[in-house]
Amino acid sequence: MKGMFVRAALGVIAVSLAGVAAAQVKPEDQIKFRKAGYSFMSWNMGKIKAQVVEGSVPFNKDQVAAAAAAIAGIANSGMGQLYGPGTDRDVGNQKTRVKPELFQNMEEVGKLAKNFNMAANDLAKVAADGDQATIKAAFGKLGESCKACHDKFRAE
Amino acid sequence: MKGMFVRAALGVIAVSLAGVAAAQVKPEDQIKFRKAGYSFMSWNMGKIKAQVVEGSVPFNKDQVAAAAAAIAGIANSGMGQLYGPGTDRDVGNQKTRVKPELFQNMEEVGKLAKNFNMAANDLAKVAADGDQATIKAAFGKLGESCKACHDKFRAE
Repeated sequence: MKGMFVRAALGVIAVSLAGVAAAQVKPEDQIKFRKAGYSFMSWNMGKIKAQVVEGSVPFNKDQVAAAAAAIAGIANSGMGQLYGPGTDRDVGNQKTRVKPELFQNMEEVGKLAKNFNMAANDLAKVAADGDQATIKAAFGKLGESCKACHDKFRAE
Repeated sequence: MKGMFVRAALGVIAVSLAGVAAAQVKPEDQIKFRKAGYSFMSWNMGKIKAQVVEGSVPFNKDQVAAAAAAIAGIANSGMGQLYGPGTDRDVGNQKTRVKPELFQNMEEVGKLAKNFNMAANDLAKVAADGDQATIKAAFGKLGESCKACHDKFRAE
């Protein structure tokens, strides 16, 4: 898990170096895929929130662990590759809320991405153990790491 | 891994029973989220295909393992919950290519979903080991399991 985190974090940090593997994905599709990743993570965040924070849905350890694993899997998949050249604005049918400033602040983005990856992997780890209080705390940290980037680099 | 597969498969099989946890997600959002999941998986399938099948991108063990883990994480997250009542047709801004027949053949869908989950988890397992020939074979099986459902239950 730790090795995977380090690789993932490096992958995100290397946004500006997004190289060969990303070269084949059109800017429009890069935006589509990254939005899909965030969207699918948000569904899983919602499940965990309902069960662990709000209590509006009964806690189901397996569902929460699976949701956390999905988030971590997506977070670790090298989404930095989806911020290639030409993806700082709407392209074709794909609208993006990213602020162009993101592409001029890669060092800071790298740190935010690293925090996000760490939080996602920590949540997956504690969710597998199933202790609700610990999961709630880790979920809160993950939410903060999402918000830190949204506040700076996502338009409303 | 095996436990997670069983839970995930049961989750998908229980499409028609999608219960409390899904109740809060509007049909329109269910369609949005399931499309996001498939879209993000397709990006990761594309990376593995380029590196392991086509050879158009140099093989990078870590990238392929991360891509396979993302696919498995999504596959295991209980996407059956996203096929609730009212999601058998376009809703609001969300178009769906699902055929209404899917909702009348839950037993068969459950088998297809089980095959898909098994193939996704097997790919993640062998990708972590890094042997290209084994990964290629597992990737082929995963693709077949996708196609089996598309052929029957997805409109062109």
